[in-house]
Amino acid sequence: MAAPKQVRWGMMATGGIVRTFAKDILLDPSTRNVVDIKHVITAVASSSSLSSAQKFISEVVAPVQSTPSCTPYGSYEDLVKDPNVDIIYIGTPHSHHFQNAMLALQHNKPVLCEKALTVNVAQAKKLYQTAKEKGLFFMEAVWTRYFPISKTIRKHIMDNDIGEVVRVSSDMSIGAVPEDSFAVDHRMVNLDLAGGCLLDLGVYSLTWAFQTLYHTLSPSLREQDRPKVVGATMTFEPRTHADESTIILLEFPKSTPSGKTKAHAVATTAMRVSDDPARGRGPEVEVPTVRVQGEKGEIQVWGPIYRPTRYRLVPKDKGQEVIDKTFTFEAGAHGMMYEADAAAKAWLEGKLESESMTWQESILIMEVMDEVRRKAGLKYPDDIETTEYPVKLKGR
Amino acid sequence: MAAPKQVRWGMMATGGIVRTFAKDILLDPSTRNVVDIKHVITAVASSSSLSSAQKFISEVVAPVQSTPSCTPYGSYEDLVKDPNVDIIYIGTPHSHHFQNAMLALQHNKPVLCEKALTVNVAQAKKLYQTAKEKGLFFMEAVWTRYFPISKTIRKHIMDNDIGEVVRVSSDMSIGAVPEDSFAVDHRMVNLDLAGGCLLDLGVYSLTWAFQTLYHTLSPSLREQDRPKVVGATMTFEPRTHADESTIILLEFPKSTPSGKTKAHAVATTAMRVSDDPARGRGPEVEVPTVRVQGEKGEIQVWGPIYRPTRYRLVPKDKGQEVIDKTFTFEAGAHGMMYEADAAAKAWLEGKLESESMTWQESILIMEVMDEVRRKAGLKYPDDIETTEYPVKLKGR
Repeated sequence: MAAPKQVRWGMMATGGIVRTFAKDILLDPSTRNVVDIKHVITAVASSSSLSSAQKFISEVVAPVQSTPSCTPYGSYEDLVKDPNVDIIYIGTPHSHHFQNAMLALQHNKPVLCEKALTVNVAQAKKLYQTAKEKGLFFMEAVWTRYFPISKTIRKHIMDNDIGEVVRVSSDMSIGAVPEDSFAVDHRMVNLDLAGGCLLDLGVYSLTWAFQTLYHTLSPSLREQDRPKVVGATMTFEPRTHADESTIILLEFPKSTPSGKTKAHAVATTAMRVSDDPARGRGPEVEVPTVRVQGEKGEIQVWGPIYRPTRYRLVPKDKGQEVIDKTFTFEAGAHGMMYEADAAAKAWLEGKLESESMTWQESILIMEVMDEVRRKAGLKYPDDIETTEYPVKLKGR
Repeated sequence: MAAPKQVRWGMMATGGIVRTFAKDILLDPSTRNVVDIKHVITAVASSSSLSSAQKFISEVVAPVQSTPSCTPYGSYEDLVKDPNVDIIYIGTPHSHHFQNAMLALQHNKPVLCEKALTVNVAQAKKLYQTAKEKGLFFMEAVWTRYFPISKTIRKHIMDNDIGEVVRVSSDMSIGAVPEDSFAVDHRMVNLDLAGGCLLDLGVYSLTWAFQTLYHTLSPSLREQDRPKVVGATMTFEPRTHADESTIILLEFPKSTPSGKTKAHAVATTAMRVSDDPARGRGPEVEVPTVRVQGEKGEIQVWGPIYRPTRYRLVPKDKGQEVIDKTFTFEAGAHGMMYEADAAAKAWLEGKLESESMTWQESILIMEVMDEVRRKAGLKYPDDIETTEYPVKLKGR
């Protein structure tokens, strides 16, 4: 058997999400039956301090990876120039993604960029246009789509196990009273960091709507007609005016190739209330937070929907058995390695995009979020809405 | 103890809902601890055939009620002229309510009229205006509001047991593929009978939104500001163009007197999918179909929400116990006697309306349904949308 191909990652930022991502990709891929690739981390950069990068390496990388060596950087500019990096993982706040991703692309580095991809669709389009012109792989890091549970659910839908899907509800709400839980400069509520529910949490509600009502169609059907925002509303955090609750009502042209009718999704997200206040009290009290409703039955998913482990398929026909399945992650894994595997494979194959999170669909979801903000009246500061590059933002 | 006061009902129509209503009100009120009133049925009318009324009396009334006697009529005109009738119960299709209710009011009869009250708000307003001018009791028969479970849930909210309520979802969907379940002339899909989800089923979804986000406020607060329809969408039954699925996104100004933020409701209704395809498989599989989400916890209600029996209160604080309560009806009762008791008491007290389903709130809900139809593009035939009276409709 050929030796696994090595993919050399550069980490842009050193915060919690990058730490989780790095730990996940350094796990032995064979534990998840991946034998053809191997992830290594060859560089880590903090925007402001070399010591943060050094600390990250000594705490996260060095204990697992003896070779190759991993270089610390005190600036992102240095990171993207490193010839020993194949692909950059961007784990900065979404307010900074556009500038960060442009920096990588301008230096001819492929990118895996955290969601929400950007703060508006104009930025997303410019990134994809740049990646296309330069022939560089680019992917929005919507990890949830790459989970085995997500693939299984999409397969149920495509296999017609619940019939034509006509309604989906999905909720990602954290049950944290913002005035008590977040200081005004916290990422969740600070408009300078594009804070609020929609981009941080609502993107998962949209992910579930799109991956069950749209991504289950063939690419050609997807492009024939587009989902539209029928209604959207927000309430605003009293101190900062970030959205603390957002509800999106969407109409999808069809959900199955032979669809008889349109389909609808209600995507919700909130801080002040929880998608399931019973979570942790056990399965007899917990409730599903995604419901994919079809003519022949329903798929229910328990939250938090960014990292769900349990789904249930309830056939309408009482003679058919209910499927109730809980997934587990490989020992120690959080779940981000699946998207990394997909990114690495696509890049190795010379592709520019990943088929489970295409550029076209990323753009569509950004368009939906733009439209929701427009309808509800939410703008971010000019320097993070701009498509000018480079613009120096407060370091992240 | 004084003898219970007798209230003499006249039944307008002889269909299934009237049968259920009649059976319920003929149950001994003391089984539900009501000792001050007694319901009797003194007349029953079918619009087309005396024999239907006779059959109804022999099957439903006579086996229970020996005195007073009950008169059958072959027309509604005869019924409303009967001096031995105190109050008319209207159980015709909602397409016919306006004409039927006007007939009763014109003959100075108080009315308990099934929901949806009318097909549009103009009709509803004209009925209330007529009732007011004539000093007659009039009530929309939203039975669910009068259930002990509904009162208990409203009390939880008013007692602040789940804190400020900021989001409600409620669903009433029957899981019946219309092409398979209903002939094109069936009440559920026939536009001549104002068929479709919204007026028949969606009114319950709105009931739950309104009774948890609006009716829990004091009357003066309710009138300060009004809920608004933020978005609405429908899909249409392929054969008849009646709505087979409707989603309504509503914004409420506040949900508690000290409310910090606005509140939202998502009210859904559909034929093709079910609000819970697991219903009947047991509590470990069934899911709630109303969720009333507050800052301190959540109230969940299991459907069908027109006649729910189970609710659960899940406090956000894991140290507090979950309340899980199932209500039962008195032996043989379906649940319509509670609204009849309320109507009878209010009428006996000389009131024109019932405080749990005020004219103001009935009108508001009709306005919401008008707005939803306008946004989604659904009109009924002119003769059932009209506020002219009398208009001879196809008999019901």
